[in-house]
Amino acid sequence: MAGYSAPIRDMQYLLHDVMDVSGSDIPGYQDLDREFTGAILAEAAKFAEQELQPLNKVGDEQGCTFENGAVRAPEGFREAYDLMREGGWTGLDMDPEFGGQGLPGLMGIAVGEMFVSANMALNMYQGLTHGAASAIFAHGSEEQKSTYLPNMVSGRWSGTMNLTEPHCGTDLGLIRTKAEPQVDGTYRITGQKIWISAGEHDLTENIVHLVLARIPGGPDGIKGISLFIVPKFLIGEDGSLGERNGVSCGGLESKMGIHGNATCVMNYDHAVGHLVGAEHRGMRAMFTMMNEARLGVGLQGYAQGAVAYQNAVQFAVDRLQGRRVTGPSNPEGPADPIIVHPDVRRNLLAQKSFVEGARAFAFWGAQMIDRARRLNDSDAEETISLLTPVIKGFLTDRGFETAVLAQQTLGGAGFTREWGLEQFVRDARITMVYEGTNGVQALDLVGRKLPVNGGKAIMAFFETLKSFIKENQSESDLKAEFLDPLKAASRDLQAASMFFMAESAKDPDNALSGSYDFMHLFGHVCLGLMWTRMAKVSMAALAEGTDDERFHRAKLATGRFYMARQLPSTTAHLARIRSGAAPVMELDAEDF
Amino acid sequence: MAGYSAPIRDMQYLLHDVMDVSGSDIPGYQDLDREFTGAILAEAAKFAEQELQPLNKVGDEQGCTFENGAVRAPEGFREAYDLMREGGWTGLDMDPEFGGQGLPGLMGIAVGEMFVSANMALNMYQGLTHGAASAIFAHGSEEQKSTYLPNMVSGRWSGTMNLTEPHCGTDLGLIRTKAEPQVDGTYRITGQKIWISAGEHDLTENIVHLVLARIPGGPDGIKGISLFIVPKFLIGEDGSLGERNGVSCGGLESKMGIHGNATCVMNYDHAVGHLVGAEHRGMRAMFTMMNEARLGVGLQGYAQGAVAYQNAVQFAVDRLQGRRVTGPSNPEGPADPIIVHPDVRRNLLAQKSFVEGARAFAFWGAQMIDRARRLNDSDAEETISLLTPVIKGFLTDRGFETAVLAQQTLGGAGFTREWGLEQFVRDARITMVYEGTNGVQALDLVGRKLPVNGGKAIMAFFETLKSFIKENQSESDLKAEFLDPLKAASRDLQAASMFFMAESAKDPDNALSGSYDFMHLFGHVCLGLMWTRMAKVSMAALAEGTDDERFHRAKLATGRFYMARQLPSTTAHLARIRSGAAPVMELDAEDF
Repeated sequence: MAGYSAPIRDMQYLLHDVMDVSGSDIPGYQDLDREFTGAILAEAAKFAEQELQPLNKVGDEQGCTFENGAVRAPEGFREAYDLMREGGWTGLDMDPEFGGQGLPGLMGIAVGEMFVSANMALNMYQGLTHGAASAIFAHGSEEQKSTYLPNMVSGRWSGTMNLTEPHCGTDLGLIRTKAEPQVDGTYRITGQKIWISAGEHDLTENIVHLVLARIPGGPDGIKGISLFIVPKFLIGEDGSLGERNGVSCGGLESKMGIHGNATCVMNYDHAVGHLVGAEHRGMRAMFTMMNEARLGVGLQGYAQGAVAYQNAVQFAVDRLQGRRVTGPSNPEGPADPIIVHPDVRRNLLAQKSFVEGARAFAFWGAQMIDRARRLNDSDAEETISLLTPVIKGFLTDRGFETAVLAQQTLGGAGFTREWGLEQFVRDARITMVYEGTNGVQALDLVGRKLPVNGGKAIMAFFETLKSFIKENQSESDLKAEFLDPLKAASRDLQAASMFFMAESAKDPDNALSGSYDFMHLFGHVCLGLMWTRMAKVSMAALAEGTDDERFHRAKLATGRFYMARQLPSTTAHLARIRSGAAPVMELDAEDF
Repeated sequence: MAGYSAPIRDMQYLLHDVMDVSGSDIPGYQDLDREFTGAILAEAAKFAEQELQPLNKVGDEQGCTFENGAVRAPEGFREAYDLMREGGWTGLDMDPEFGGQGLPGLMGIAVGEMFVSANMALNMYQGLTHGAASAIFAHGSEEQKSTYLPNMVSGRWSGTMNLTEPHCGTDLGLIRTKAEPQVDGTYRITGQKIWISAGEHDLTENIVHLVLARIPGGPDGIKGISLFIVPKFLIGEDGSLGERNGVSCGGLESKMGIHGNATCVMNYDHAVGHLVGAEHRGMRAMFTMMNEARLGVGLQGYAQGAVAYQNAVQFAVDRLQGRRVTGPSNPEGPADPIIVHPDVRRNLLAQKSFVEGARAFAFWGAQMIDRARRLNDSDAEETISLLTPVIKGFLTDRGFETAVLAQQTLGGAGFTREWGLEQFVRDARITMVYEGTNGVQALDLVGRKLPVNGGKAIMAFFETLKSFIKENQSESDLKAEFLDPLKAASRDLQAASMFFMAESAKDPDNALSGSYDFMHLFGHVCLGLMWTRMAKVSMAALAEGTDDERFHRAKLATGRFYMARQLPSTTAHLARIRSGAAPVMELDAEDF
């Protein structure tokens, strides 16, 4: 059976050695000294390892059950969820005005990684609540905030996002769910939503549905969509729960993974709904939630890779099979542990170098969001907006791939349920799909984010890269092993951007045909940058003397692997991008 | 629910337009005219589509059941298996002396692809029988052949391969199962085997286990392994079934996919066994079976990709979502079919160009085996021996990836059980593992196959490539779009081979660290060669005039996609290979 050990050491390294968080000018970061973050991470690790992880397999095997409209989460989920609430984890980075602890989002990401690695399906119940609460926080009225947020922050109520309908997923302009205005200022919501995560369950007293719907008479398409709060139980003036609203679960989806999370068909039948923000401006509010969710999904992707990797290493150290070609490493035993074989190491290093690079990338992204929110920094806002589809698309594609590689390390054992690796693969698979498929992320990146303000955000990103590379040229080891490959990869990214600029004017399909490769090229450059930053820090630590030489040497070896073996993929991505639209668009639809 | 339509048209194109089978000098090929192969393929298609495919989901959902030592296959499996036997499919390419139809192995591969696409778990019961029968055919005594083969060829009895034990999979030298010689010339087999596909079930009257075991007093390690036939029911002198042998199923493995096939723990307790071939020479005989099985697994990999792709296309044509950027393609409808979107096309073309290239590769490999067997052609034997790990490793890695891409085409629907795509992914996953993990295939390729006879086989492969490229230089379209990229990819493969030759003498880890990339680089060159051959044929057909212009144009468009977008991966593989052992071997085992 799979285990989990939270990466506290690696997170502390990122927070303090690499990011120097307590020296930051972002409000709230000053409190994040090594001792304080260490205490939080240690508590989170304990909870993740001892309460969440043991329920991961239970959740997968039992799944959720549906009877007479009620959904029951797997055994133990309710108790673990209550402990999560009581521990204050649901409001860790929420506003103290509504009962949150007010820590930076960065700490929420660190703790979130642990919870997702330990039990993704269970953590989703609170993850979705967090997203819904953020949308109400950003776009709700004062009354809505005071009505919903305290109970959502405390986790007593949970939240959901209701976008998809049977005939529309990506293309939300096709939404049919109706919202009819009432004389009392409320609306009556009628329609069907599908694939609603945590749509119905028995973990919380109430469920706050955020629902996209169309007010009759409004504009067609996406411009006529409004956002509504539809609580499962109506709420009295005094905040007490009243009667059941006209919303019910019509059934559960049977699916490949995340069995512990209820994926629901939700039927709205004249349910009372409260408009969030202005009429017909629902997409704007929903995007607040969706952007947060996309970062959260990127985190899910690499967090599943992270726990899968840990279990692969354990197997590779324990399993004795074959002899090292250059001489036995375990001559007293019947065979050597498989971790000595070059191809097993290649596989494990591909996992490790991705997971640690992805963690750095996610932390960097979280810091940018904190900077944007807490300092109203528009540069940070633009950069994170550009990077959001990369974080979502790249980290989930590679996170899934990492789980598959980890499964492969176990050979036949990886295919059995007993060892638990196959669950990580099945659970990770959804991250490439929900909150916008990765193809949609690539489209968002190339079609929407890249051209904003004449490409200002990506130009700024190139500047960051360029000055970082320039500043550190004097370090000869860093230059040869890290800066030079990073420079080469950056050039590929620049060449791809130039190609899009030059060729998409002639035919937009020239850019759209290369969007997926561009997203991956971009992701590789980001991870290359993260590894170079880490290498700089670890080289300096070794040069200055450190009592953790082993850690820093391992960091450098892992980084070297990424730069030498993973980063060269950028050349193939660029070659594909440059082939343009022709190979993609030539074939008639009927000839597929 | 997923469907299946057998690719008869594409197979006929390969057999006749590309390979010109009836013009071949291989005995038996002369009979394979277009009409004859068309009739066989049409019959096979009918059986696959109407009998096997409808049971694919049933098998996945029900799985096999274990009670009191007996295993029951899913509902309908027995009836479909009987129809398969009655249709003569189990002996299609087996020797007529034992009741087979004596067709070339190539036809077995073509029919096999259909059966695997339709129902991989069910087809495995006969696939393993085929492999076991081949081993007995090649290494058994005359008496063994006459005792077992007629019933195995007819499918009345099935077969299995028993290699793995709890403590040993790849490293078979560690096998502990004992075979004690008896005065009557038989042996008594005692030990435990795990992960035995089709080890016990209710489809056949008897099960013929081929078991690797150790005769006490023999050499240690792999040189002391012998192969035994251990029937489930003992066989009387008159061929009648006698009492139960000392072999029993101890339980079923719960696993990620292929639920319809029973993966068994097999306990041998003084079971009567019959030695196959000489004592201590079991590995040689087992390799006959394993090499056939490896090709069969490569076929499983791309066949799962093939059926997944079909279903992805169907969805992409039906699903209306979003508008084409360059103008609506379905202005009357609420949205355009998603197949018009460049990134959806990119995804589908990656699937299509792999599947059709892989089919050509597998057919080419089958033809080589026929040439080797039926003409005793040692060149063909050496080439297929070199290519076997590439066929297994590359076609299963990319076949799985293709199923994942197809699942992605469906977005959220791909994650649900209802649509069936996720089953293809779960079923395809095992192909990367069994019959030697793909890491072991890469090791076999680089450590064993490449250096044989001073690299004779790969030199011959390079010669084939070179002369093919040279011969066709005058065709200018073929040159620019196909021959030039093929040449570039071939150069990468040659450069990688040179690197291994030069650097592995210094340190064998230099080659072993690049083995996996080499396997993929090799696979890409093979598919590039296949696409170039097909392009030549289709260009000629279009130039000469054909009544199937549409087919040939589609073939060319698909080939162009492969050459322009997939083949450039070879540069990244070469870059990784050239980074050598250092990045892979530097990190201490304790620091993973």
